[in-house]
Amino acid sequence: MNLEYTHEIHDECGVFGVFGHPDASRLTYLGLYALQHRGQESAGICASDYSQHRFHVGMGLVADIFTPDNMENLKGEMAIGHVRYSTAGSSNIKNAQPICVNSHFGPLSLAHNGNLVNSDELRANLEKEGSIFRGTTDTEVMVHLMARSRKKELTEVVIDSLLKVKGAYSLLVMTKDTLIAVRDPLGMRPFCIGQLNDAWLVASESCAFDIIGGTYLQDIAPGEMIIIEKGKELRSIRAFPPIEEPIRQCIFELIYFARPDSVVFNKNVMQARKALGRQLAIEHPAQADIVISIPDSANCHALGYAEQSGIPYDMGLIRNHYVGRTFIEPRQNIRDFGVKVKHNPVRSVLNGKKIVVVEDSIVRGTTSKKIIKLLRAGGAREIHMRIASPPYISPCYYGVDTPDKDNLIAANMTVEEIKEFIGVDSLAYISTEGMLKVMGDHGKDFCISCFDGKYPESVEPPPCYTKPKQ
Amino acid sequence: MNLEYTHEIHDECGVFGVFGHPDASRLTYLGLYALQHRGQESAGICASDYSQHRFHVGMGLVADIFTPDNMENLKGEMAIGHVRYSTAGSSNIKNAQPICVNSHFGPLSLAHNGNLVNSDELRANLEKEGSIFRGTTDTEVMVHLMARSRKKELTEVVIDSLLKVKGAYSLLVMTKDTLIAVRDPLGMRPFCIGQLNDAWLVASESCAFDIIGGTYLQDIAPGEMIIIEKGKELRSIRAFPPIEEPIRQCIFELIYFARPDSVVFNKNVMQARKALGRQLAIEHPAQADIVISIPDSANCHALGYAEQSGIPYDMGLIRNHYVGRTFIEPRQNIRDFGVKVKHNPVRSVLNGKKIVVVEDSIVRGTTSKKIIKLLRAGGAREIHMRIASPPYISPCYYGVDTPDKDNLIAANMTVEEIKEFIGVDSLAYISTEGMLKVMGDHGKDFCISCFDGKYPESVEPPPCYTKPKQ
Amino acid sequence: MNLEYTHEIHDECGVFGVFGHPDASRLTYLGLYALQHRGQESAGICASDYSQHRFHVGMGLVADIFTPDNMENLKGEMAIGHVRYSTAGSSNIKNAQPICVNSHFGPLSLAHNGNLVNSDELRANLEKEGSIFRGTTDTEVMVHLMARSRKKELTEVVIDSLLKVKGAYSLLVMTKDTLIAVRDPLGMRPFCIGQLNDAWLVASESCAFDIIGGTYLQDIAPGEMIIIEKGKELRSIRAFPPIEEPIRQCIFELIYFARPDSVVFNKNVMQARKALGRQLAIEHPAQADIVISIPDSANCHALGYAEQSGIPYDMGLIRNHYVGRTFIEPRQNIRDFGVKVKHNPVRSVLNGKKIVVVEDSIVRGTTSKKIIKLLRAGGAREIHMRIASPPYISPCYYGVDTPDKDNLIAANMTVEEIKEFIGVDSLAYISTEGMLKVMGDHGKDFCISCFDGKYPESVEPPPCYTKPKQ
Amino acid sequence: MNLEYTHEIHDECGVFGVFGHPDASRLTYLGLYALQHRGQESAGICASDYSQHRFHVGMGLVADIFTPDNMENLKGEMAIGHVRYSTAGSSNIKNAQPICVNSHFGPLSLAHNGNLVNSDELRANLEKEGSIFRGTTDTEVMVHLMARSRKKELTEVVIDSLLKVKGAYSLLVMTKDTLIAVRDPLGMRPFCIGQLNDAWLVASESCAFDIIGGTYLQDIAPGEMIIIEKGKELRSIRAFPPIEEPIRQCIFELIYFARPDSVVFNKNVMQARKALGRQLAIEHPAQADIVISIPDSANCHALGYAEQSGIPYDMGLIRNHYVGRTFIEPRQNIRDFGVKVKHNPVRSVLNGKKIVVVEDSIVRGTTSKKIIKLLRAGGAREIHMRIASPPYISPCYYGVDTPDKDNLIAANMTVEEIKEFIGVDSLAYISTEGMLKVMGDHGKDFCISCFDGKYPESVEPPPCYTKPKQ
Repeated sequence: MNLEYTHEIHDECGVFGVFGHPDASRLTYLGLYALQHRGQESAGICASDYSQHRFHVGMGLVADIFTPDNMENLKGEMAIGHVRYSTAGSSNIKNAQPICVNSHFGPLSLAHNGNLVNSDELRANLEKEGSIFRGTTDTEVMVHLMARSRKKELTEVVIDSLLKVKGAYSLLVMTKDTLIAVRDPLGMRPFCIGQLNDAWLVASESCAFDIIGGTYLQDIAPGEMIIIEKGKELRSIRAFPPIEEPIRQCIFELIYFARPDSVVFNKNVMQARKALGRQLAIEHPAQADIVISIPDSANCHALGYAEQSGIPYDMGLIRNHYVGRTFIEPRQNIRDFGVKVKHNPVRSVLNGKKIVVVEDSIVRGTTSKKIIKLLRAGGAREIHMRIASPPYISPCYYGVDTPDKDNLIAANMTVEEIKEFIGVDSLAYISTEGMLKVMGDHGKDFCISCFDGKYPESVEPPPCYTKPKQ
Repeated sequence: MNLEYTHEIHDECGVFGVFGHPDASRLTYLGLYALQHRGQESAGICASDYSQHRFHVGMGLVADIFTPDNMENLKGEMAIGHVRYSTAGSSNIKNAQPICVNSHFGPLSLAHNGNLVNSDELRANLEKEGSIFRGTTDTEVMVHLMARSRKKELTEVVIDSLLKVKGAYSLLVMTKDTLIAVRDPLGMRPFCIGQLNDAWLVASESCAFDIIGGTYLQDIAPGEMIIIEKGKELRSIRAFPPIEEPIRQCIFELIYFARPDSVVFNKNVMQARKALGRQLAIEHPAQADIVISIPDSANCHALGYAEQSGIPYDMGLIRNHYVGRTFIEPRQNIRDFGVKVKHNPVRSVLNGKKIVVVEDSIVRGTTSKKIIKLLRAGGAREIHMRIASPPYISPCYYGVDTPDKDNLIAANMTVEEIKEFIGVDSLAYISTEGMLKVMGDHGKDFCISCFDGKYPESVEPPPCYTKPKQ
Repeated sequence: MNLEYTHEIHDECGVFGVFGHPDASRLTYLGLYALQHRGQESAGICASDYSQHRFHVGMGLVADIFTPDNMENLKGEMAIGHVRYSTAGSSNIKNAQPICVNSHFGPLSLAHNGNLVNSDELRANLEKEGSIFRGTTDTEVMVHLMARSRKKELTEVVIDSLLKVKGAYSLLVMTKDTLIAVRDPLGMRPFCIGQLNDAWLVASESCAFDIIGGTYLQDIAPGEMIIIEKGKELRSIRAFPPIEEPIRQCIFELIYFARPDSVVFNKNVMQARKALGRQLAIEHPAQADIVISIPDSANCHALGYAEQSGIPYDMGLIRNHYVGRTFIEPRQNIRDFGVKVKHNPVRSVLNGKKIVVVEDSIVRGTTSKKIIKLLRAGGAREIHMRIASPPYISPCYYGVDTPDKDNLIAANMTVEEIKEFIGVDSLAYISTEGMLKVMGDHGKDFCISCFDGKYPESVEPPPCYTKPKQ
Repeated sequence: MNLEYTHEIHDECGVFGVFGHPDASRLTYLGLYALQHRGQESAGICASDYSQHRFHVGMGLVADIFTPDNMENLKGEMAIGHVRYSTAGSSNIKNAQPICVNSHFGPLSLAHNGNLVNSDELRANLEKEGSIFRGTTDTEVMVHLMARSRKKELTEVVIDSLLKVKGAYSLLVMTKDTLIAVRDPLGMRPFCIGQLNDAWLVASESCAFDIIGGTYLQDIAPGEMIIIEKGKELRSIRAFPPIEEPIRQCIFELIYFARPDSVVFNKNVMQARKALGRQLAIEHPAQADIVISIPDSANCHALGYAEQSGIPYDMGLIRNHYVGRTFIEPRQNIRDFGVKVKHNPVRSVLNGKKIVVVEDSIVRGTTSKKIIKLLRAGGAREIHMRIASPPYISPCYYGVDTPDKDNLIAANMTVEEIKEFIGVDSLAYISTEGMLKVMGDHGKDFCISCFDGKYPESVEPPPCYTKPKQ
């Protein structure tokens, strides 16, 4: 039982890159450590000394995988890194990233956050043409496309390859002496650029710049490609032909995935969450003594709700953060204590109280049910649950690990039924309109397919598509 | 660099025991997991099947030390466990607990939270009489005293031995078929008793009962001894002759050590902390836009301060909990980022604001200085620091790892000087009277020697005493 | 210091395969264990359940790499395995074999013993066509050739690919349901076929059949391809067009590499070595009290010398076989004891004696010099060294790890000079004619390029060829 | 399945000590490596810098337990080390040696080879007096006796303690600044003294001096105590009162345990074994084509037999030395291959031949039976087995791991029956007289209780004694 994996959906990856710093791999180590919440299953760093690529990948947490010994080897002023979550089935070292190969460009390494919807087809074609695959990731497909491109210029090779793929990607490509960062035309996953003295930084989230004292500069724009080459200025180009569709940034990054201290999609994550909480309080007020959150993911939303409603914020659940690599699952006969391993209710806060519990989302519903049971056991008299996102009804195919539709409670039950299932006195979700409103600009730049089931046209999954379990 | 050790003082141990459950060692594993905050350096479990003791101890976190394989061996319905923090110098597997030996009683195992002030003398005497020592813990001294006692009854043996020691102990003693829990006459360290169906539980804090669905019954009283013997009723006896001195429970358990969801010294920890926060706000109000805490230790105090002052509570610092076993320290040239590895300021919350920062205590002052620097970098315009305990001026000799007096900032600087050193706009500590008042009953049952320098008479350390580095 | 690597030249690999046994991976484990002398740096097993390939590779010894846990996963009735030695420089898990990929055939895995001389050129071409490489082995080149072949039938694919390569290979190719074993047209490396009940076995040496109670059937002939397909009879085909050149089996397999209990190139290895020893005694008799060997590699040759000469065989050196994974190198100040870590002279045998020391070969000369120093220290009065192979003057490019010509003592010194360098009273090598004579049939089927510098035409290395350090 | 443990009896320990060398622990590491054949289950080193003892112990082989990191800590000019074999049941780190404690002498560490017959009684008494025990070794009993001795002088303390024990010991005692080596009055286990420049060395066997370039000086005499103290000359004293009984050196050390390149009991081991082989040939000649040994333990005896008989020595069995830490046992269905994992017959040597197989001893008989089956499978036409020691009929209680009498084949069968059981054409053992004769001086100084069942009076085991499984 890995206690890290108790939230019901997961971002699948985080990426980080450095160009032009003598301690490139150390900085990448720290950057990945700051991005650890985006993937706890495997991690890797590949460094280039402008001649050779050296890499180390492993299963587990960043701080467990890397040692002074294996870091020593990762020489050079460029480095890219990756943290990865994946579903249990194919959790495997052979799928760990970065992927580092030799090609006619010389060394070529990729780190990718996102998911493609046409990789099965691409893979089959590539195999037909003689490509071989070691693992099952989309990233390996992209490596092959690049290796096979007939273009001469590296930037053209990358663009040429990416024009063939459909899906989400915030992608780092490293050759001997060039670092390229490119974001898909819809901008589905976050990606930003920063600076540390004379070195350039790129990362999934700005918190990875903060940890090393770097400065966030700006988001890489959807469809933008950044090229940093030894001895040249940083260049930015508009990589793809104009598309009809609007930008489609993943709204769930702001709701749940990103760290609250990050800037993502040019927004302060914490402020976005508080605004959701406030809007939720406006739409769905409650008569209660206190507002509590399910720590730590709903803390900000709950603060916002408390602020707007005037009901005091309190701490009704304590979370245990001491998670080792291999927590031993309790036997059935002592397993009834449910999720208390991770959360414990605070009786002195809850006892006899009417409470508002703010949660960022409900996916399967089973975790919420357990938490509510804990709160009841802790003495809560009335429980009003408020959800800072709309009902989650459709799986994501763009880099998020979600259950099948059959397992999404809101796809199968009404709000009233969910209320009964979870066992609360009242349950309410923020409205889609409310959510988009507080995102500003009518939320027009966001993908909300998990809430409305409408996938962006240009990356619509084929019929009968099942997300590859990576 | 072990990021767990960044708070400046530490509780040195946590203990847990079970009697009468077929999964005794599994329950102990979970209990220790819940007590992990009391010691992250080593852990151990010893189990008895009413005939033989089997144990496993290791360095590191509970969830890393124990595996299904090594747990398999820990058979029986009784078990005791221990988590331990110790200073780097003698961090050593030979000091890990429980200590498990064979003696003329048969198997004998001890787990101890606390510290003795006369163990040097006792050890020297025991060695003179032919005892041999493997490690440097006080606990080993107690084992020898018991092995050498001429008393016949186990309870008498334990009392006889403990009458010779001076100091703090919440002690578990396990023989083949009996579990004894005993707390020193001053009750310096916490100790409580619980129940899970027909099984008895004992633990340093009640949160260890919660995790396994057990029920907190009551504190073991200072000087009380609980005896649980196979086939007999649980007995409680007053173990020691009456003493002149009042009870002396460690007030720092309520201020910082214990988990907020625990009951300790018959008090709800979270409520005690909130009350300290409120009192602090009464004594030392501030003109500010928001109240923030240094997570996670000062969260409750900050909530109390916010509640009393009416200034909104907000989250200005985010803490990264992904700590691996061996975080690689950044090189000097990138080390300026200070404690950002653990805490990151949230610019969108702090920028341009006047803030109140609530902290539970200041020990060395160096961590506070770094945190304040972070907050300034995050844009805070004015910083008013409020400390929910009085100036910390004297080392503790009763089971707490504290720096020497030379390194306690409040023993060497005035509040004004500390304010300058740390770099805040104002600094204020709660008064000793205020602190005691909110503990109820004039706080008469507490040891506050760390704040007033007056050690309890019956356990006063000898002159020139230096706490053994265990 | 890895004590295994103290002989001065090394075979680079051993391979093993099973078809049609429910315990295929366990048998492969044992087979590799028997072939461990052919490579101690990494090992791997890939198993097929006629649908999927599963593999495990690791660095180190077979018995350390595989555990019941990781073996559990290697399901199926087919398996191939590999042990590998490589030079320190690129000792790396990414070069470990078998190489297991997915291709348009489905799963495809290769295990290879040998070395190609045109792989640089092939690799460059493949990269130009878009292939990507993870490691630096020749084997990966062969995988790509197969994945890119336009042929339809698997056997044609393999033949088509191998027609492009120049060099030595005893190669195992496994698909979902077919096992192919193929040996290069010159038959440079050994390869044989065996049987265990209904299962087919293939291995570098017959000792790998013995360990599992299997039966050696015959050598796979140079240029022969064996095809074992699910549900079909075993087929053998002549894979390549007739070549002008005679067979060129590596004579050094018989001199040193193979285990004495193996049959290799249809010859009993032990008998071949004894015959070399006898021939050596005929060509270069000596006046001495005893004949000793340098254990264990020269034991058989020494027995033959003793038998022919009538001088008694004795044991003057004892070898310590307890080699762990990481022997700690003694500091300089205690390093003068030289190779005593591995060999110790027996004074009671040597003291005052005239001795004949038989060695299989001299490569660099440095090890021999140390051994002679040991024997002198052990009291030997006269030392006559006899070498059971001719002077070693040319590097091997066909799967043997040899030093550069500059480091081959016989390429740079006369026998007289070597005698002086090593410090013996007399030194003599077997003649090339003598060596070939005892191999029977005038030794016409052997590659002796290490002794005469004449590389077989069809696999002649290109000018300026440097063996890739794998 | 640990392949090291396939011989049927085992020496239980080896010890090594250094005094006065800056690299004391490194030398001890090498010494233990040379003594690895005396114990492969655990090993440990304790070093003293004349002030503090630091130690490291672990399970497994010397070269696996010690790393540059953990050696770094073992500072000082004195060190003692230990390798240990023990029966599976209580194989346990808590029994690993050296045992290192603190006592009223200060640090005190012991390393012991041998076994006591009255330790149960001593342990019970010590426990009654308040001693505590961590493990189950005799050595811990000796530590307690020393810690409790009322004598003032260290030498007196040691003598006083040893006068209470009955049994075999070659014992190293280290305090802060003194190293004592003492051998029991009967001299049952070997012990010798050597020199390396200005440093003193002590070891179970002289091969441990050779590996570090040290010089063997002489045996420590039975009942002798060597004292090496900082700043003083080495002293030797006769430690015990004269006893009636003659010296009783373990003859099995010469037959099997010791390395052939060692000097043990002032005898060259290899010469002793060859002499046994020659005597065996005189007593029990055979009509045969070749003489072979079961490698490696019977190599020397076989050479002697061959020399005397004039029948050529040959190699009919090859032994695989690549033993990892955890060899995976083959499943039952492929286990029939018996001991081929370790030994493989050489068909080209054996086929159609009449052979003499020389073995050092037969204990259970099961291994011999398997080997003979192998030789038959290898084609041997007639097998004449010759045993270089008399029938083994009584368990040893003095530091050798032997089966119970019920499992000693010669205690339960006649030679004729054993011949049938093992399946040889003839079987003969050397006579006791013959064995003693070749040891010189009528073999009067040897314990042969395993052959005649007569235990030395002064160390006779109590009735119903069962050797403690350590």
